[in-house]
Amino acid sequence: KPPVLNGKGVYVTGAASGIGRATAQLFAEQGANVFMTDINPNQLAEAADEIKKATKANLLARVVDVTDEKAVRESFEQVVQHFGGIDILISNAGNAVQGPIGEVDSATLRQSFELNFFAHQSLASQAVRLFKTQRTGGVLLFNASKAAFNPGKNFGPYALPKAGVVALTKQYALDYGADGIRSNAVNADRIRTGIFPPEFVKERAAARGLSADEYFQDNLLKREVTGRDVAEAFLDLALAEKTTGSIVTVDGGNIAASPR
Amino acid sequence: KPPVLNGKGVYVTGAASGIGRATAQLFAEQGANVFMTDINPNQLAEAADEIKKATKANLLARVVDVTDEKAVRESFEQVVQHFGGIDILISNAGNAVQGPIGEVDSATLRQSFELNFFAHQSLASQAVRLFKTQRTGGVLLFNASKAAFNPGKNFGPYALPKAGVVALTKQYALDYGADGIRSNAVNADRIRTGIFPPEFVKERAAARGLSADEYFQDNLLKREVTGRDVAEAFLDLALAEKTTGSIVTVDGGNIAASPR
Amino acid sequence: KPPVLNGKGVYVTGAASGIGRATAQLFAEQGANVFMTDINPNQLAEAADEIKKATKANLLARVVDVTDEKAVRESFEQVVQHFGGIDILISNAGNAVQGPIGEVDSATLRQSFELNFFAHQSLASQAVRLFKTQRTGGVLLFNASKAAFNPGKNFGPYALPKAGVVALTKQYALDYGADGIRSNAVNADRIRTGIFPPEFVKERAAARGLSADEYFQDNLLKREVTGRDVAEAFLDLALAEKTTGSIVTVDGGNIAASPR
Amino acid sequence: KPPVLNGKGVYVTGAASGIGRATAQLFAEQGANVFMTDINPNQLAEAADEIKKATKANLLARVVDVTDEKAVRESFEQVVQHFGGIDILISNAGNAVQGPIGEVDSATLRQSFELNFFAHQSLASQAVRLFKTQRTGGVLLFNASKAAFNPGKNFGPYALPKAGVVALTKQYALDYGADGIRSNAVNADRIRTGIFPPEFVKERAAARGLSADEYFQDNLLKREVTGRDVAEAFLDLALAEKTTGSIVTVDGGNIAASPR
Ligand SMILES: NC(=O)C1=CN([C@@H]2O[C@H](COP(=O)(O)OP(=O)(O)OC[C@H]3O[C@@H](n4cnc5c(N)ncnc54)[C@H](OP(=O)(O)O)[C@@H]3O)[C@@H](O)[C@H]2O)C=CC1
Ligand SMILES: NC(=O)C1=CN([C@@H]2O[C@H](COP(=O)(O)OP(=O)(O)OC[C@H]3O[C@@H](n4cnc5c(N)ncnc54)[C@H](OP(=O)(O)O)[C@@H]3O)[C@@H](O)[C@H]2O)C=CC1
Ligand SMILES: NC(=O)C1=CN([C@@H]2O[C@H](COP(=O)(O)OP(=O)(O)OC[C@H]3O[C@@H](n4cnc5c(N)ncnc54)[C@H](OP(=O)(O)O)[C@@H]3O)[C@@H](O)[C@H]2O)C=CC1
Ligand SMILES: NC(=O)C1=CN([C@@H]2O[C@H](COP(=O)(O)OP(=O)(O)OC[C@H]3O[C@@H](n4cnc5c(N)ncnc54)[C@H](OP(=O)(O)O)[C@@H]3O)[C@@H](O)[C@H]2O)C=CC1
Repeated sequence: KPPVLNGKGVYVTGAASGIGRATAQLFAEQGANVFMTDINPNQLAEAADEIKKATKANLLARVVDVTDEKAVRESFEQVVQHFGGIDILISNAGNAVQGPIGEVDSATLRQSFELNFFAHQSLASQAVRLFKTQRTGGVLLFNASKAAFNPGKNFGPYALPKAGVVALTKQYALDYGADGIRSNAVNADRIRTGIFPPEFVKERAAARGLSADEYFQDNLLKREVTGRDVAEAFLDLALAEKTTGSIVTVDGGNIAASPR
Repeated sequence: KPPVLNGKGVYVTGAASGIGRATAQLFAEQGANVFMTDINPNQLAEAADEIKKATKANLLARVVDVTDEKAVRESFEQVVQHFGGIDILISNAGNAVQGPIGEVDSATLRQSFELNFFAHQSLASQAVRLFKTQRTGGVLLFNASKAAFNPGKNFGPYALPKAGVVALTKQYALDYGADGIRSNAVNADRIRTGIFPPEFVKERAAARGLSADEYFQDNLLKREVTGRDVAEAFLDLALAEKTTGSIVTVDGGNIAASPR
Repeated sequence: KPPVLNGKGVYVTGAASGIGRATAQLFAEQGANVFMTDINPNQLAEAADEIKKATKANLLARVVDVTDEKAVRESFEQVVQHFGGIDILISNAGNAVQGPIGEVDSATLRQSFELNFFAHQSLASQAVRLFKTQRTGGVLLFNASKAAFNPGKNFGPYALPKAGVVALTKQYALDYGADGIRSNAVNADRIRTGIFPPEFVKERAAARGLSADEYFQDNLLKREVTGRDVAEAFLDLALAEKTTGSIVTVDGGNIAASPR
Repeated sequence: KPPVLNGKGVYVTGAASGIGRATAQLFAEQGANVFMTDINPNQLAEAADEIKKATKANLLARVVDVTDEKAVRESFEQVVQHFGGIDILISNAGNAVQGPIGEVDSATLRQSFELNFFAHQSLASQAVRLFKTQRTGGVLLFNASKAAFNPGKNFGPYALPKAGVVALTKQYALDYGADGIRSNAVNADRIRTGIFPPEFVKERAAARGLSADEYFQDNLLKREVTGRDVAEAFLDLALAEKTTGSIVTVDGGNIAASPR
């Protein structure tokens, strides 16, 4: 039996680290041609090398700042040149930004919207354009967050654009379902990635009287969730041919943040 | 018994027309000092005149483009000068923008975010700053929309920032509850205002085989919802001293869009 | 100006204590004829006496066990005889029941469903029958709970029927909107009533290192919510002529439990 | 690579038809020992035969009425005897019941609760008891419905207990996460099974001017959803080791009913 994604083209953003890297690896293992992009050149090169060694997959790695609309547009030309097209977009790059919502300066909030909302929109619109040209349907996958469902105090600059990402997921499902384009998201929480600087973890864990490990296991199942777990949810959604407009949760269990 | 809002300062945006105007009128009837702002000078003057005649309230009307951060900041100085401060912000101005989400041009989408999301944020942050200086607590009220809960096809440019407004409502509740600041929103639908150009109504009504009147009564109760109905929900929320982070629905009944 | 509910007939269950009693009082103050029912004869008599003295309203008090379908049916005959009919049902009686959901015995769970779900259904169906005979429309108001939105560990026997009450609220809105019948609910939390036995409060407060007062103020606004606050939400909903299928939250602020 | 469920014990209810049968088949293909139960002896025997032929899996089929608590209890003894235990419960049996909620007779509503709510609870509690004895963790999977999220007019007798099933899914996740027990549900819609009698489909399709095929394709993707699609979602959830308290949607796309 050939791997389930044999020959499929997959575009992953933020692929140099954390969830994006784990996702690129899993999709490569499943036989996909993976286009790995990130803003961080060294980490990207290293990640691509390692995945290539581990999977022998057809990989392409390019530095793309997802907040740069022109760079995003050009990256789609590159992926078409190399892979002939793509079947799946995994719009993953993002970063957590904090501040009390009434005091955070306008520039900080807007920067977070550029990365955590408008970049997803710019990537998705390019992907849809391509899918419609290819006449093959296609799959959009977004990395949302628990913050979109149950936001935390002083995390508005992150939670607000992520709420937008959930709405974006549904809007693409609505507007392009009839074109065979599916649009879904993963709602993850507390994965030990670059988004959690060690000092931040230390501080938050200490505030709850927990060790760093316990902090990451502080969910209903008392088990740490990994980037690989999130990658598997992306894979499930990539293959769920009758599911669109849907959000899958991967958080070890947290009823307060579970969609309803 | 004096009117319930006697002497309270209330700042209403988009007060020249539709829901904003009805809200300014109701709050004026309840004894509030109302600061009416809008981008449309003529309509604003006319609305202010009429409300003044009808209610004898202490009114102040100023042209303010809510998407202009500087103008918003200055407007808060004006209202402080005239009324000594405000107790309630009703962030209402908005406009419906359409387009398939993968094809709408970036400028259109961003303009809608300026009016339908960032302007709410700029007003609320100014209000919170003032409330904290006054040490009186305060009330933030936002005009969300059914589109935030059950978006329609090709209405992404409107639904996405409105989803942001709902998240914003909750974030202010989270971040400033301990300061005695409450933050709530109204979720209305299909009010016959400037947002519904007659031709648009004609077309949509016709598509469903309805008259314009039937189109506006096409809800569970089969009764048209008016700006006055929405204004009353804002009043209820202004007075609901133990409610924050909450969304009240005024739509004649539509289970598909009811928060859950 | 006459009181807003002058001459309206209102049926309140669980009216001898807590939220029900505060609601009976507020509606009596607003001029309604109030039919107070409860399972507890002494408390009911005392509550009715006090409200009569305070408001001079037209009151009727009867012992009705809401889980007894026959008694409920007969109570509607009584209220029709005395008040000529009713305009508003406030289905409020309920009680908190605990136990880990996989181990609670079947009888305990089913008893909770009798009181916290099926009784609401039996009362609402009687009210709708009456409203349809009267051809006056009518208002159904239910007492839901935070547990329906964000349930707590080991509170399944309470949370499950309350989730049913929220669904019931929406179903009545759906099925009877065209008859002019509105159906709404209040989502309250942590009101110091008979539902919180002092020992229970002591234990839960202690577990969080709080005093009893702090326990009841442990919300975003840091203010205790009272039965009167909930009563006011019922009153708002009774008067909100274009709102149906909606849930209003009165909990001092708790984003994890806010409908979305 | 051995099939992913090699040697796992899986208990499926309503396994003789529709979604249950497709699920039994998929899990059998994946190497599980499948305990198939249903109320319908002939259909059950036929289904079990066919699956055995197709998969060579270790199957056991028994007539069990899920509304009979004693029969359910005994069925767990049988499955322990034959398979040594189970790892996964798929609580699937159910049936659609209609009627305007204020007029449906009490017996009809209660019967629907027996099948569509209390039976799920009785099965899940037995499974949890077994999982705790086995000390192996375990997986609970429920068949919810679109009706739990966006109920239809006059479908209260079905929608209400299904809302209960969603709450039940979350309660088990809450109460037993620390025991390694995961609890999730699938939210499906409009699958051509025994639940859709041909005359019913004809009538509903005709009311919308659709053929039967178009009726089943009337979703965003314009593709019919099958029992196999739902079975695959159950399989994904069975394997999603860090997901609990979650609902996965398989409906071809319907934003009005998508969890949020
Ligand atoms: N970790 C968690 O608990 C959760 C994460 N998420 C989401 O997962 C996504 C991935 O984050 P995660 O793996 O955790 O974090 P990481 O920081 O490990 O990975 C994010 C990657 O994106 C890159 N990146 C940042 N900005 C840009 C940009 N403008 N253009 C291109 N690439 C960029 C980062 O580069 P560099 O390192 O140089 O910044 C980094 O390589 C984010 O959207 C996040 O919001 C959601 C829920 C939970
Ligand atoms: N009508 C409906 O069914 C619903 C409306 N809403 C929301 O209600 C709010 C009010 O809209 P509604 O009353 O319906 O529509 P109206 O168009 O009647 O009123 C909106 C007012 O806002 C003004 N306005 C527009 N842009 C700006 C700006 N940049 N700065 C200041 N004022 C501005 C408009 O001026 P001008 O006329 O010159 O543009 C107008 O006077 C909006 O946020 C809308 O999204 C929500 C749900 C349903
Ligand atoms: N307090 C809170 O924090 C919250 C309460 N609620 C809901 O509010 C409602 C009212 O409770 P609350 O005021 O808090 O509690 P109380 O116990 O103070 O009041 C409930 C009243 O209902 C009566 N009652 C109990 N069973 C029956 C019955 N079978 N038939 C008729 N009357 C009965 C009780 O009598 P007796 O005292 O003899 O039992 C009591 O008088 C309940 O539905 C509860 O779930 C919802 C959210 C929060
Ligand atoms: N089809 C759909 O569109 C959707 C279905 N669902 C749910 O899927 C589940 C399965 O239904 P579906 O496959 O569609 O329908 P089917 O009728 O094809 O299958 C249901 C099976 O359950 C059996 N059953 C009925 N009552 C009992 C009982 N008391 N004890 C044991 N078995 C019983 C039925 O037997 P018999 O035929 O003799 O009655 C039948 O074999 C249900 O819970 C349904 O609510 C959810 C969403 C959408």
